[in-house]
Amino acid sequence: MGKYIFIRHGESNINVLGVLSGDSDVSGLTEKGMAQARRTAEQLSGIKIDGIISSPLKRAFETAKIIGEVLNIDVKTDERLIEVNLGRAKEKKINEFTNPLYPNSHITGSIRNLIGMEDWDDMISRVKSAMDIFNGKYIFVSHSDPIRAIASYYLGWTEDDSFGIDIKNASMTVIDSDKNKVLCLGAINLDPEIKKLFY
Amino acid sequence: MGKYIFIRHGESNINVLGVLSGDSDVSGLTEKGMAQARRTAEQLSGIKIDGIISSPLKRAFETAKIIGEVLNIDVKTDERLIEVNLGRAKEKKINEFTNPLYPNSHITGSIRNLIGMEDWDDMISRVKSAMDIFNGKYIFVSHSDPIRAIASYYLGWTEDDSFGIDIKNASMTVIDSDKNKVLCLGAINLDPEIKKLFY
Repeated sequence: MGKYIFIRHGESNINVLGVLSGDSDVSGLTEKGMAQARRTAEQLSGIKIDGIISSPLKRAFETAKIIGEVLNIDVKTDERLIEVNLGRAKEKKINEFTNPLYPNSHITGSIRNLIGMEDWDDMISRVKSAMDIFNGKYIFVSHSDPIRAIASYYLGWTEDDSFGIDIKNASMTVIDSDKNKVLCLGAINLDPEIKKLFY
Repeated sequence: MGKYIFIRHGESNINVLGVLSGDSDVSGLTEKGMAQARRTAEQLSGIKIDGIISSPLKRAFETAKIIGEVLNIDVKTDERLIEVNLGRAKEKKINEFTNPLYPNSHITGSIRNLIGMEDWDDMISRVKSAMDIFNGKYIFVSHSDPIRAIASYYLGWTEDDSFGIDIKNASMTVIDSDKNKVLCLGAINLDPEIKKLFY
């Protein structure tokens, strides 16, 4: 239990191509991705936290390192923060699997099961178990789908209910698990009232 | 007070060009926009509501008419559901006003005031006053910014806090104002449990 700043990795090479990387580890940050991570790190400058935990994938770990340097905190990795297992969609073009009326959007509904994507609730469980282990105030550097899933869980929404969540690169989603609340969603400008909770 | 299904208009000609239309009324639905509206209308088929209220702008009214035909309900218009007044950004390319690290995203933070965009809280007030007048179960057909703003209000988020909300064309955002809750956000597949509330 505690307060968690979930940060999505910055833009990666594979994001630019519109390809689904999932839990594959072929791609690091672009120049723009590094700039996004630095912009987020600067906003977090001065906060006091118990640690930075990152998905082990390169694009996340590189983002976490940039933030860790600004906050002067070492980065630990944890497998539970890894991107969704995409099943047969892995390393394919996203538009082969999204609804043709909503290209470049979330793979949603029954298609997820059809292609053998990791179950939505399993993804929530593994992120929650990381939160159970790291008690206190933490930065978790993760990926689009796990952040959308854990935010949806605290908002009381199903996967379909949360289609309007779009977690941008290096954006911040703050969850207070003691109060059962999502304080902000995919923010690129951190609310000063929220930042105060991390002093 | 009541239960409201906020629906964004389907894709419009000006959406395709990446141009900000705001409260201008130059553009109707594309073929794809009509298909999105029909897809949403089919999902709503069978619900019982007190009325359909639409923004008067062409792209919203055309969407509302498609839904109204399926539900066999006339469409009324209300100015309070109109898109945000964009100030100097109106009919300009979106990327002139968004953060260069986040192109094609929301115009956010201090830039909103700088270019004379309608105030965030004013936008919330006008949507709330429409909800105060239409008491009961309603479909409100509106636009990206007013839907993001009213959802943020019920979620307790500021404009910056809600950057991760992306309301897709013809998607459904359901608000129960009696319970002070957002039941789903920008959904393209309506949750059967939510649909039951409109029987």
